[in-house]
Amino acid sequence: MTTSNAERSSPTRKTAIPIADLQRFIASVLTAVGMPAADASTVGAIMAQADARGADAHGVFRLPAYVKRIRAGGINLRPDMRIVEERAATALLDGDNAMGHLVMKRATDLAIEKARRAGIGWVGTRHSNHAGPAGLYARMPLEHGMIGIYMAVGSANHMPPWGGIDMLLSTNPIAIAVPAANRPPIVLDMATTTAAYGKVKALAQRGQTMPEGWMVGRDGKPLLDPKRSDEGFLLPIGGAKGYGLALMFGILAGTLNGAAFGRDVVDFNKDYQSVTNTGQAVAAIDVTAFMPLAQFEACIDDIWAQMKSSELLPGAQEIRLPGEQSAITYEERVTHGVPLHAELITALDTLAADLGVDPLV
Amino acid sequence: MTTSNAERSSPTRKTAIPIADLQRFIASVLTAVGMPAADASTVGAIMAQADARGADAHGVFRLPAYVKRIRAGGINLRPDMRIVEERAATALLDGDNAMGHLVMKRATDLAIEKARRAGIGWVGTRHSNHAGPAGLYARMPLEHGMIGIYMAVGSANHMPPWGGIDMLLSTNPIAIAVPAANRPPIVLDMATTTAAYGKVKALAQRGQTMPEGWMVGRDGKPLLDPKRSDEGFLLPIGGAKGYGLALMFGILAGTLNGAAFGRDVVDFNKDYQSVTNTGQAVAAIDVTAFMPLAQFEACIDDIWAQMKSSELLPGAQEIRLPGEQSAITYEERVTHGVPLHAELITALDTLAADLGVDPLV
Repeated sequence: MTTSNAERSSPTRKTAIPIADLQRFIASVLTAVGMPAADASTVGAIMAQADARGADAHGVFRLPAYVKRIRAGGINLRPDMRIVEERAATALLDGDNAMGHLVMKRATDLAIEKARRAGIGWVGTRHSNHAGPAGLYARMPLEHGMIGIYMAVGSANHMPPWGGIDMLLSTNPIAIAVPAANRPPIVLDMATTTAAYGKVKALAQRGQTMPEGWMVGRDGKPLLDPKRSDEGFLLPIGGAKGYGLALMFGILAGTLNGAAFGRDVVDFNKDYQSVTNTGQAVAAIDVTAFMPLAQFEACIDDIWAQMKSSELLPGAQEIRLPGEQSAITYEERVTHGVPLHAELITALDTLAADLGVDPLV
Repeated sequence: MTTSNAERSSPTRKTAIPIADLQRFIASVLTAVGMPAADASTVGAIMAQADARGADAHGVFRLPAYVKRIRAGGINLRPDMRIVEERAATALLDGDNAMGHLVMKRATDLAIEKARRAGIGWVGTRHSNHAGPAGLYARMPLEHGMIGIYMAVGSANHMPPWGGIDMLLSTNPIAIAVPAANRPPIVLDMATTTAAYGKVKALAQRGQTMPEGWMVGRDGKPLLDPKRSDEGFLLPIGGAKGYGLALMFGILAGTLNGAAFGRDVVDFNKDYQSVTNTGQAVAAIDVTAFMPLAQFEACIDDIWAQMKSSELLPGAQEIRLPGEQSAITYEERVTHGVPLHAELITALDTLAADLGVDPLV
């Protein structure tokens, strides 16, 4: 697992880190900046899961920025989360500006508990923060025989309303996860923009260019240099439709919860101190409120088989199900570890040295 | 309101029909083919609302096909709808192969009732049928101070999984509606394909061509003639993302309810006899389970103002909110009636003569 400096300096060189090491490293860094050990362990586990599942722009990659925010006082390390509104199937959770992962873990657990009795549980959050990949929270109900749905207001506005240029919307993602029997669960996890902003940041770090269609400038012309992303904006999927989805998911995850939306969204890449008042919504649906779980899971296996068996379009290699690549990546990374780019390892080494914790490798 | 034959034969000629006349005509046609009067009146009202709101491909345009299905025995005119599963916040409604509008009206009423107590109500349907535009059912909770969400399995497969050519997916739409104070509600109503199939059918009837990007042939090349739509398939928004949305909405609205999905979907444009076992899902969220209604509605007004105030992209005329065009259309049509193409009037005249009911105009 050790890598020479020469190897690290190559932009294509990667080092594989065991998931448990990643989790311990994240937890030790967060503990070093003052987070209680139990919370740091929870966040470490969730962030390492993000990397294990292939959400490379949402796991340990974010750690330096999280630390910067914590040190600037932008995260409450001793939060008093509380349920401010509650009904049989719904709740509104105020995260008291805790790490988003902790708020969302609590919200999802509550949604699952409510779904067990009421058939569905829908929990909104406010005063939360960036919580990593949407798919993680949609997946949590799966092990309870439930379907998970997650929506969030993205943590910085990178998109105007369709036809405009003022940055009023974020990549507001949705994730939906359904359990299967002998196949991996089907897990859709997508930004409502052509590309998630994390992917733009990852390309910028690696010095690569963006494909056309990800971003345009304020003149409406294609923008390809991810380092110039501040000069343009992300494009929604399907034009006005993706704008509509970003708007509605933002209202459901933000406005309805009294969380920030539109002009009120704090750009967490530029402002590390202000309370972001991030909003999310998570729903769990108990499959047994509709049909026996085994019957549903068999149907999902059958849907896998149907989609995979379709004849291919000329030039296509194979048909994928949402979550299939993530399942393959997960198996690989459980066995071989998470491959981290040399630039990221260097950034994490610097962070570790700065905080006096053991380096990752 | 009368129009000469010469005028009717022009493809651009339209006749404006008052909404009440449209509703009465639809009800009288449905009564003539054996539907109980109360049900015919309900369906007439819902279908006329579809036209009033500008969903031209989902209102009276569908009447001849509905009548054809009823006459072929493909709709149960004496349904015994029943709730087969129920919890505090969820229900599964078996529509007993009734007209989809009747099933969805009942399902939405039930979702609203559950939301009032539990905060959210989620009702799935099976053995339902095509129910018109998604937006109508998402709108129904609005007058109760609630947010509406609707998803459906489309009534014919026109899309393969991404990378394939077998028709396993439909346009599976989603609609989300939120109430405003002094502005129209924001209502997103969209197919997960670039174009809804109803729009393709409407262009075919008018002898017009499709824009590039709506459909491709089995060779992957653009298909522009809507009369040749059988030779190709619809494209999802955002490529693999739209495929993922169509898949997940289909699972939530179909599979979870024991309704048809994938290969089991009956093409209602080709087979007028078989039970379609159409599935839908509708959710109502009581805003007051999260915040006072007036506060939420004021926030939605503010979102209107924010979006409208954005500086425009070069070449753009204005920024629209989802549902804005529909609200403008509705005001126009309440005052001036619903403009119907001459071809459609002719088809409805033929239908009326055949059934011995008074013609529309």
